[in-house]
Amino acid sequence: MALEEAFEALEPATLPSRLGGLKVLTEKLGEPSGWQVREVGDGNLNLVFIVEGGGSAMIVKQALPYVRLVGEGWPLPLKRSFFEYNALIRQAARAPGSVPEVFHFDEAQAIIVQEFLTPHIILRRALIEGENLPKIGPDLGLFMARTLFRGSDLSMKAVARKKDMALFSENDALCDITESLVFTDPYYDADMNSHTTPELDGVVARLRADRDLKVAAQDMKLAFVTRAETMLHGDLHTGSIMVTADETRVIDPEFAFYGPMAFDVGMLLANFWMSYFSQRGHEQEGSRDAMRAFLLDTISTTWAVFRDEFARLWREERTGILYQRSLYEDQGDSLGAEQALDAFLHALFEDMLGFAGVEIHRRILGLAHNADFETIADRAQKARSETAALEFGRHIAVNRRHISSLDALERLAMRLEEESAR
Amino acid sequence: MALEEAFEALEPATLPSRLGGLKVLTEKLGEPSGWQVREVGDGNLNLVFIVEGGGSAMIVKQALPYVRLVGEGWPLPLKRSFFEYNALIRQAARAPGSVPEVFHFDEAQAIIVQEFLTPHIILRRALIEGENLPKIGPDLGLFMARTLFRGSDLSMKAVARKKDMALFSENDALCDITESLVFTDPYYDADMNSHTTPELDGVVARLRADRDLKVAAQDMKLAFVTRAETMLHGDLHTGSIMVTADETRVIDPEFAFYGPMAFDVGMLLANFWMSYFSQRGHEQEGSRDAMRAFLLDTISTTWAVFRDEFARLWREERTGILYQRSLYEDQGDSLGAEQALDAFLHALFEDMLGFAGVEIHRRILGLAHNADFETIADRAQKARSETAALEFGRHIAVNRRHISSLDALERLAMRLEEESAR
Repeated sequence: MALEEAFEALEPATLPSRLGGLKVLTEKLGEPSGWQVREVGDGNLNLVFIVEGGGSAMIVKQALPYVRLVGEGWPLPLKRSFFEYNALIRQAARAPGSVPEVFHFDEAQAIIVQEFLTPHIILRRALIEGENLPKIGPDLGLFMARTLFRGSDLSMKAVARKKDMALFSENDALCDITESLVFTDPYYDADMNSHTTPELDGVVARLRADRDLKVAAQDMKLAFVTRAETMLHGDLHTGSIMVTADETRVIDPEFAFYGPMAFDVGMLLANFWMSYFSQRGHEQEGSRDAMRAFLLDTISTTWAVFRDEFARLWREERTGILYQRSLYEDQGDSLGAEQALDAFLHALFEDMLGFAGVEIHRRILGLAHNADFETIADRAQKARSETAALEFGRHIAVNRRHISSLDALERLAMRLEEESAR
Repeated sequence: MALEEAFEALEPATLPSRLGGLKVLTEKLGEPSGWQVREVGDGNLNLVFIVEGGGSAMIVKQALPYVRLVGEGWPLPLKRSFFEYNALIRQAARAPGSVPEVFHFDEAQAIIVQEFLTPHIILRRALIEGENLPKIGPDLGLFMARTLFRGSDLSMKAVARKKDMALFSENDALCDITESLVFTDPYYDADMNSHTTPELDGVVARLRADRDLKVAAQDMKLAFVTRAETMLHGDLHTGSIMVTADETRVIDPEFAFYGPMAFDVGMLLANFWMSYFSQRGHEQEGSRDAMRAFLLDTISTTWAVFRDEFARLWREERTGILYQRSLYEDQGDSLGAEQALDAFLHALFEDMLGFAGVEIHRRILGLAHNADFETIADRAQKARSETAALEFGRHIAVNRRHISSLDALERLAMRLEEESAR
């Protein structure tokens, strides 16, 4: 715990003197005596400061040795900042332009100084407010295809991938959060759970007694824990994405580790589906019809762009030890590589549905709820919207191997959503 | 490469002076001046000495910084000795009595001093000689169930498993051998390959043009590379097992790493199947009929004992983070845990068939052939036996998801084997 001993939390008053010696900051922000510092962190884990000066601004993010939301009773290693930094620089290399630029990293103080994104807002908030953002589907499809493909043995040198996997395997404390809070706790009456009660009591009891669902969720946990396919973002929900109408940036990869590709994809699509099911709680008389159509379209666009870019990388950048060209293209058998690609993407699609179903459940039954539902003022509508999402999540997790396409799912989502309006 | 710099290969003449100061040796072997030392290594990689003295004996195994079979042109890290030692002590804890006892380990000199097993012989040789060994099926079924279950997240603490996975991920040089020589090279005309030519030229060309087979083999490579389910032996063929009529011991786990459970099971059963297909080359007029029946019985016994012991551990020792009792038994839903177990074992069975098919192919088409076929004097019979094994391997690898049981496979194996006699 050497890190924790030397650690000192930043404060707006101390930040300029503690970071003022860094040339990379003073070059942009001017002399520290002129800096304006505000703490703006609204996440569950960290301190976040906006530092303004010289007509410019930067973000200073500092991990705390405990969960901010809960307090010192729930310690959490500072080293997550090291993994976040390492994930950010890998994502920047694998999907240029998709993450904030990093200006400085201090491992001992768990500080990352990074680009201040403005006028970006958190995607989740934009979706709650009903903003139509046509670039998010394509941008996020590309981000996932590039980071997930290029961090895997389809692309990397085998020894480099193994070393990186070992490095990120030390991020066990954050993996443990996902292993417990996402995959396990929602499926029984765990201490930290909560749900809209008593309205959801019936459906919750039914889901927790649903044997097929419980096995499906644990099958997905097995995949999460054992399948070190690529470096994941690890927490790719709409609260980890900042947007303008023109730009999409992915932030906060402190949960990064080597896991199954479909986890990032499933979590992201789950959050789009939850946004879809929650719109009913934010509308006045059909005002969100276009928003619902936009969200369904975003889901299919995200998947289609992901799939197409992944296929392009498969054809053009497959330089790793998996499905080597020596066995296919070099033998005049490019269709062999296409056959393998189709099977690979089909399996990824199935896994994606499994992870998405679980993500939906944990956001309604577990500890960390999301604002999409929590900000619905009409409690009865909130419960109906949550119920529709829970039923949808159960369907896709349990039946993931039998769902042929997102088209078929779209109709199911529409039916459940319409029923939730009654 | 600090290890390699300090390294000095043992010789029979220098061994007593170099190891004579170790009390754990002199207690059993007496004063080093009285030791008798013979080098007996016949493997591809290492030096192996038998040291006798004081009416007792020990094995001294030393890694060399290159592949012994090939020479200094193929360097191989000494650190494999560290992984072998660490695997041996874990296997001894997880499956007591199944591996040789370790008396001393010297990391810098890559030396393991271990129990001299006598009158044990290598299982492969015993099978070639037609020995009926009824204990091997049960013993090896138990060994695999216990080591594979207890080294996984079904049993271990999650952080301990992750740390151990990271430790063994450094065994990348030996993983690379398997990744290349087992999963890739056999399926194209790679430099180091060889096969019985010209007799097998036709079937080899057909297999290397077989798209479904090439995709299946690469799917299994994907599983091998990414699925860190448990600590594997990693090289569990019949040359890594020593037997008497009463006892079975597993040796040489230097390929150990965290990979898919089914790899060890598939490699072992593949070597039994190859022994089965090779018996025709070692018999006089039906003298191996009983041996063939014994081998088929051993295959089903090994799998049945593995499955039953794995199921017992699942019910009694499932203390890890996967399929937690809190979701099943603790909710009065023990059938939920049984449902998950059945699906888990079914997936493991499918993977086992895939790995077994690939193992058969690489032993006939790749670099490292095995004595079962190589010692067949009648070249035409050898080619027919190898062809039957290759066809069988192709069938189980490609059709692994559609094969319902070992019973069904037994009939196929018998038919192919009978045809190989013509």
